[in-house]
Parts: sequence; structure tokens; C-alpha cells
Amino acid sequence: MIEGRKRRGGRKLKIAAAASSARVVNYRQLRHPFTPQRIFSDDSVQAIHEAALTMLETLGIKFLLPEARDLLRGAGALVDDDTQMVRIGREIIAAAIKSAPKSIRLRAINPIREQIYEQGALLFTPGSGCPNATDLERGRRPGSLRDFEDAIKLQQSFDVIHKHGPSAEPQDIPIHNRHYAMMRAQMTLGDKPLFVYARGRGQVEQSFDLIRAGLNLSDDDFRDGVWASTVINTNSPRQVDSPMAQGIIDFARAGQMSIITPFCLAGAMAPVTVAGALTLQHGEALACIALAQVAASGAPVSYGGFSSNVDMKSGAPAFGTPEHVKMQLGSGQLARLIGFPWRSAAGSASNVADAQGATENVMGLWGALQAGATMVVHSAGWLEGGLSFGFEKFIFDVEALQSLAELCTPTPADAGAIGMDALAEVEPGGHFFAAAHTMERYATAFYEPLVADLSNFGAWTEAGGKTAAERALGVWQQVLRDYLKPEGSDDIAHRLAPMIEEMEKTGGAAPLD
Amino acid sequence: MIEGRKRRGGRKLKIAAAASSARVVNYRQLRHPFTPQRIFSDDSVQAIHEAALTMLETLGIKFLLPEARDLLRGAGALVDDDTQMVRIGREIIAAAIKSAPKSIRLRAINPIREQIYEQGALLFTPGSGCPNATDLERGRRPGSLRDFEDAIKLQQSFDVIHKHGPSAEPQDIPIHNRHYAMMRAQMTLGDKPLFVYARGRGQVEQSFDLIRAGLNLSDDDFRDGVWASTVINTNSPRQVDSPMAQGIIDFARAGQMSIITPFCLAGAMAPVTVAGALTLQHGEALACIALAQVAASGAPVSYGGFSSNVDMKSGAPAFGTPEHVKMQLGSGQLARLIGFPWRSAAGSASNVADAQGATENVMGLWGALQAGATMVVHSAGWLEGGLSFGFEKFIFDVEALQSLAELCTPTPADAGAIGMDALAEVEPGGHFFAAAHTMERYATAFYEPLVADLSNFGAWTEAGGKTAAERALGVWQQVLRDYLKPEGSDDIAHRLAPMIEEMEKTGGAAPLD
Repeated sequence: MIEGRKRRGGRKLKIAAAASSARVVNYRQLRHPFTPQRIFSDDSVQAIHEAALTMLETLGIKFLLPEARDLLRGAGALVDDDTQMVRIGREIIAAAIKSAPKSIRLRAINPIREQIYEQGALLFTPGSGCPNATDLERGRRPGSLRDFEDAIKLQQSFDVIHKHGPSAEPQDIPIHNRHYAMMRAQMTLGDKPLFVYARGRGQVEQSFDLIRAGLNLSDDDFRDGVWASTVINTNSPRQVDSPMAQGIIDFARAGQMSIITPFCLAGAMAPVTVAGALTLQHGEALACIALAQVAASGAPVSYGGFSSNVDMKSGAPAFGTPEHVKMQLGSGQLARLIGFPWRSAAGSASNVADAQGATENVMGLWGALQAGATMVVHSAGWLEGGLSFGFEKFIFDVEALQSLAELCTPTPADAGAIGMDALAEVEPGGHFFAAAHTMERYATAFYEPLVADLSNFGAWTEAGGKTAAERALGVWQQVLRDYLKPEGSDDIAHRLAPMIEEMEKTGGAAPLD
Repeated sequence: MIEGRKRRGGRKLKIAAAASSARVVNYRQLRHPFTPQRIFSDDSVQAIHEAALTMLETLGIKFLLPEARDLLRGAGALVDDDTQMVRIGREIIAAAIKSAPKSIRLRAINPIREQIYEQGALLFTPGSGCPNATDLERGRRPGSLRDFEDAIKLQQSFDVIHKHGPSAEPQDIPIHNRHYAMMRAQMTLGDKPLFVYARGRGQVEQSFDLIRAGLNLSDDDFRDGVWASTVINTNSPRQVDSPMAQGIIDFARAGQMSIITPFCLAGAMAPVTVAGALTLQHGEALACIALAQVAASGAPVSYGGFSSNVDMKSGAPAFGTPEHVKMQLGSGQLARLIGFPWRSAAGSASNVADAQGATENVMGLWGALQAGATMVVHSAGWLEGGLSFGFEKFIFDVEALQSLAELCTPTPADAGAIGMDALAEVEPGGHFFAAAHTMERYATAFYEPLVADLSNFGAWTEAGGKTAAERALGVWQQVLRDYLKPEGSDDIAHRLAPMIEEMEKTGGAAPLD
């Protein structure tokens, strides 16, 4: 018998189709199942850390926001206001590393969605920050509020997505009112940990106000754990622009979480080497962590990295490449060196939800899994290096996430699992379909695919010969049809409506440039 | 700046397109870069091993070939010729585990293709054993000699494919002559380690004769390392059919390698649990290893497993599933327990070269990488659970293999790699494109994609908006156009031709049923 060619009617056998309904696996809180892998020796990790400290101390980093420079100057950094350069001594960094919490409670509207954000935890968040949206029904278009809301509904519908994210930018909402629509959608269509863009103090404070009022939280409630997080991208190399620095300060003072994420593309905004790009990433992250701790000692802040490489022929960013994976592994080592939870990212540079897009994302997901990332951002639906959120891509990326989540479940090897009775019961060359051991377990034994089609070529052809993307179209449409608002959502909406109306009446809040 | 949206003209920048030609990475011999991961505790691994020994000792395994039963009887096994059942004591297994070599030299026509087959080595082999072939130009059809030969040319063209395999079955060649065509194609179109099907003594001995004569090997040369290997699939559960048992015996006596591979699909031919399927796999593998060692003590033999699960609704085999990955990890632990090199497998159940197919294969590839597999079979081009060899799928699976091979290369973190000079040279917010550190390295810094398209949406659309599969069509066509026969190939062909003519004249060799 040759493997893969032994069918013995297996493909034709029909077992109770009700098998699916019995299987329930909790994907809501995951812990890493594997030991993190290394790409560098301990000495090399230490050398990169030291180089980053030297870079901050001798070359410095540019903070465009005067308030940020003043705060760091107050902590002992050497500041030149003309050049906006800040040189940060290693003792300031050491103090920041010490004062930052290493385990952070991420609150959620629904308590069952809460997360402990720490080393060892594993969270997936959706593809985020995309100006465009695309799907096979409506094609590629600028993101709209409908796309943003549909994406929140999809995020809400899969437990393996652990935190909301701004998948498609609602470009049809004026920028000074956009944060209202984003907060309303997250808080009334979902019940998971919330995302707030750091687009200036006005928008951030109003977003926090909406969370407190919408969820009926006292000031103390709001500071009991973290209700909102934001991603802080540096303007690599060695530069932090004003909205980002202000975001770090405002989130820190409000007890909310900044996820520090230098976006270091080796060969473009970062050195062309893995070690060089990581040195830059690490230094920038440490500088931002220091700003958060200087603004409010003990403020929740996440280490992070989203370093990859560019295509040296075109300068285009690449994802899921070997260099991307190597930088994930190195980032994990650096995060463990300083003891921080950290975010990584997957994603795809593909222009379409095809095999390239799938390969790139799954490479990045496994990289993050082996690197011990606390949170994997852009883990579903991220196309064109983040320029488009793909609805079909979201669905089959969720399939990959669910597969990885299954690896977090224990694998029993007790006498019942080994099943010597079953081995004795089935005769040589026979089959286990009807064995008692099978009948007791078959309904819940295996992960059941969301979009993968396991039917044979003939049946698949008869059913229309659809690709994974074409089937995923039907899946997300059905998920949106089946979607139900979370409990308590109407109450939240009622509380938000008059506040938002009032805020809009007074002109909204302009973003900080 | 929001990640993924910072372009600053990066996508437009054109750097010397000649960058590609400078980069040469040796993918020919790979070593695992990672520490193998575990799915079971050491106690559980031991429990599965003990259960497998108990199964062999008390339940036994059915060998359809009288010669196999006689050999095992001679070693002390309890044989019932009426039922064909053989009960194998653990002392026989212990002796076999001891006498089998743990490091095996795989010879190749071209010495630079040699492999040391042992724990820690990493070999990829192509999708194999497929009755059909499929591509976007010619559609899906029964495999032909042309498909078989084209597949050998493709295997030969990528260093990351380490051993030849019978990708598409040449169904247009009568079965009693088919092995001649398969050996001629491998030996004249490729120069990598060879595959021989175990389809009965006649075909095996003739194939060995062709290798000796074609390569001008003395009997001693032929036994100096391994020149041919075969995959031995059991007829699970607990049954070994005649051609397979005869193959084990004949390969062992000729000093060639059997790769023992129970194909245990949990829920169908194996217990529905991961631990149960692995117990069956392990017991069957140990029984076959024992037969090889009884036939010729010290014979080269590989442990192996290709266990996965079936879809419990349809009975269809599934690949790249969480259960498949768990079984890979468990197989690795069992192989390490007995100290053997071992084969795993990736592959896909998808009917088409789409995102499902890519996701399934990449999941299995990472599973094998984390499981510490010595050889990953079906790692490129395997569709429909092995019923079709896909030419486009082969190409973008090779892209994934090359990406993993890159992870096997060291990642420098010396002062030059960290690049403090470059960090000092580039001003805040600037770019590294023109930095001296970049200029010295850019031509060889990054893996260069084979089929991934990193151009932006506009450029991609202008170029025809092709999916990865559509681009892969052009790639394999070009590779076949550029293909060159290996050096010395004509000499081999001249030596083989009269032998094959004579063998065909005398009626070929019928396979053993």
C-alpha cells in the first residue's frame, strides 16, 4: 500500500454529520504550548541590548514633542531642543525596565474575554490599520464605516481573535469625528479588549471618556487593569513623532497600555542586517518604554517589534520571509532578556487572498509561536503589507489561528487515550470506524475545519470547484448573517449616543499632526 | 506613523536589479536550527512505547509473506501460519533497535548531493506516489512518463529538494516495465539520492542492477553507504502486505534503506486519539525495523510516521491539521526515545493549489521542523492527499522550503552585523538605502522570492493581477526550459539502454501482489 492512495472507501464513508455540534474547545485564553526557540546565543542577545543602550546614550533619539523631551530631561536625559535630540542614559532605561509591570490585566466588556497580558500568554489580534478593504463580492475600495463595523462583527464572532483592532479605516467619516464611530462600533458590536488610536490628546481623552461612560466605570474602575490599548509606531530610524509621544504619555497617565512597536524594515528604515535592525528596534522600544515610565511610573506598557525586510529590488516591504521570522525569534529573546510581554506580527505582502498570502501569514504565525510572542498582531486578514483588509483572507487566516490554538490544548496519553482495547478489538487490516473507543470519542476528537474542503476531487468539482477564497466568501457572509450583538450592547449604545452627539456638535477633536 | 502604511517612496525606489545574482546560499545539506518541541511528557512517551511493545507481544501483527514470518520465527517470534499472525517479544525489538545504524550515508550520483541521514539532519523530498498530475496549462490527468520526467527535472532544479521521489506515476508505461522508466529518468535527468519502489523482488533486484551498472559500481561500492531507498507503508492496523515485507527483506540484504512508514489515519485505520494512533504507528514501525534487522543485522532502516486524522463526517484523510502536527511532534519524541533518524510528511488535502493547500502544507512543514524530522516527505506539490501532483503547487511549496532552509543559516550578531556605524550615519527619520553598511551587503542580504510578488497593488494589477498559482505556472515552465541534464548523464544513459532493452525483451518484471 502506498501512502495517500489507500482509500478503502474511506472517502465515501458517511458518519453522523452531527459530529460537529458536540465539539467545544475554549480558544478564549491561550497559553504557549512550546518552549521559545533561539536565533542568537545569550552573548549575542546581550551584545544587541548593549549596542541599543549605547545608541540611546551616545547617538540619541529624536522626540518631536516638546513635552516628551521635557519629561525625559526631568529624568536626567541630555536634551538638545534645537535638534530635538534626546540622549538617554542606561540608568534611566534600567529604572524603566524595573518599574514597568510584567503582567497586565486586559479588561473586556464581557469578563470572559479578559486576558492576562504576560510572557507565556498567547493572544491573536486582527489585521489592523488598513486604509482599504477588499472582498470577492464588492472588490477593493477605500475602507468605510460599514467595513470597519463588519470587521468588528467578524472579530467578535471568532473566540480565537482576542482583542479588537481597527481592521479597515472608516475613511467616509471625517477624521475629527472618526474616533467616535470607532469606539461606538467596538463597544456596541463587540465585547473584547478595546483599541484606541493615539491620534492626539483630544481624541484619546474623548475615547477614554466614552469607555468610562459607556461601560459605567468610575475612575478607579477604569484604572483597575487596562481597558484600552494603543499601538505606538516609531518613525524609524531614531525618531518618535508627536502623536505617538503624546499617546505614550496620555496612555501611561491614564493607566492604559501602550504597545511599543518600532516598524524596522531592514534595508530601508533600519540596517540591512537582522542584528542591526533589531538593535535599532530595541533601542527605540526602550526609549518609548522609558518615556511611559517617566510619565507615570508603573504604567502598563508592552515591548514590541514588527521588524522585517524590504525587497532590495523595489524597496517594497516583505512579510513572512526568513528574515522576518529571524527577527521575530530575536525579538523574543530581547523581550525575555528584559522580562517584558511583547507583541509580534504576522501578515502578508500579497495583493490577493491566494497561496502567497496564506504562506506568508502562516510563516509569521509560526515564527511568533516559536518566538514566544505574547500577542500576534495582523494575524488575520492583512493584505498588501497592510494597505488592504481582506474579508476572505480573514476567514482562512482564522482557520490557521484555530489550528494553532488547538496545539495549546493538552494531548492525553493515559490508558484511555492509548486505547489498547481498541487495538485489540480491530482485526489486522480492519478499521476503527465502529470501534467502541471511536464511537465514544469521534464527535469531539478532531478540529473541524472552518473553510478547508476535504472532499475528493469529484465531489469538489461537482460542488463548483471553488478555491479556498471563494468558499471563504460564503463563510464570512454567513457569519455576518448569523451575527448577534453582545448582551448589554443596547444599554451601552444608549449611554454613548448623547455623549457622541454633544461631542460632534462641538466640532469633534482634530488629530495631532 | 501607522505600521504598514509608512511608505515614503520605498515602493518606488529602484535598486540595482542585479542584486539577485550575487546571492548564493547552500541549501544542499541542512541541519535543524531548532530544539525539537514536545507534545508529551517523557513518562507519556515511555508509556506509548511500552504499549506498542505490549501490542506486538500479546496481540501480534499479521505478515502476509511466509518468508517474513519464517525470518521472525527464526528470531524467536511466536508465529501462527494459519492466521499469519506474528507475536514479537520485546527482546527481539530491543535487539533490532540496538543493531540498526543511527547515521546513514545516502550516496548520490553527484557527490555534492550526498546526505548524512541522522538525527539533526533535515532533508526535503517532493510530493510522491501520486496517480495523477495537474497544472494550469494541461489540467488534471492520469500521470504519464512525461509528467514523471518533468517532475524529476523540477526536483533536480532546486537544491532544497534533497532526494528524488516518484511524484507522478507514469501510468502510460506497463506496470512490469515501469521501474525501468523510473530508474532511467532518475539516473539520467537527476543526480540526487534515488528512490526505488518495493513492488516485488523482481523489480527491486532489477532496479539495483540498473544502479550498479548505470553508475559503474562494484558490489562493494553499492554497499558503501546507501544508493537507493524505499518507503514501506504498513497496511494498518497491524498488517504488512507481501510486497512491503519483501521490500524490507530485499533492501536490508542489499544494504539499501527502507523508510518504515505506517500511514495511521486516526479514526479510520488507527485509533481516534493521537496517543492511540501513535501507539499503533510505533508498534508497526518497530515490527518492520525488527524484520529488517533479522533479515540483515545492521541494515540501514529509518523510523517513520505519517499519521494524521480523517474528517469524521466523510472519512476523508486530512493533512496539516492540529492533530497531524501533534502526531508529528509525538513521532519525533518516539524516534528520539529509540535514537533513530525518522521521516515525517507534510502535504495537502486541497483539490487545488490555493490558500488551503498552502496553509496545510506549511503547517505540516513547521510541524516537521519543530518535531525534529530527519526527512520531510511530500514537502512540495502534493495535492488531494496524494492523488495529484501539482506543478504550480510544487513551485510555491519550494518557496516555503527555501524559506525554512534560510532559517538553517547562521545569523551573525558581531559588531559588523549590529552596524553601529550605520546607525550613526543615518539621521533620525532618514533611510539606510545608501548607507555604506547597506551598500556592502544589500546584494546578498535577503532571501529572494521565487514566486512571491511584492509589488504594490497598482503595479500588480497592471502586470495582469496574477495569483501565486498563475505566476507559478510561468516559473515551472521557465525552469523546464532552462533545465540542463547533469554532467555524465549521457554515459549513464548509454550504459542503461542495452540493459533495459534486454530486460524488456524478456518480459519485464511483474509486481508482486
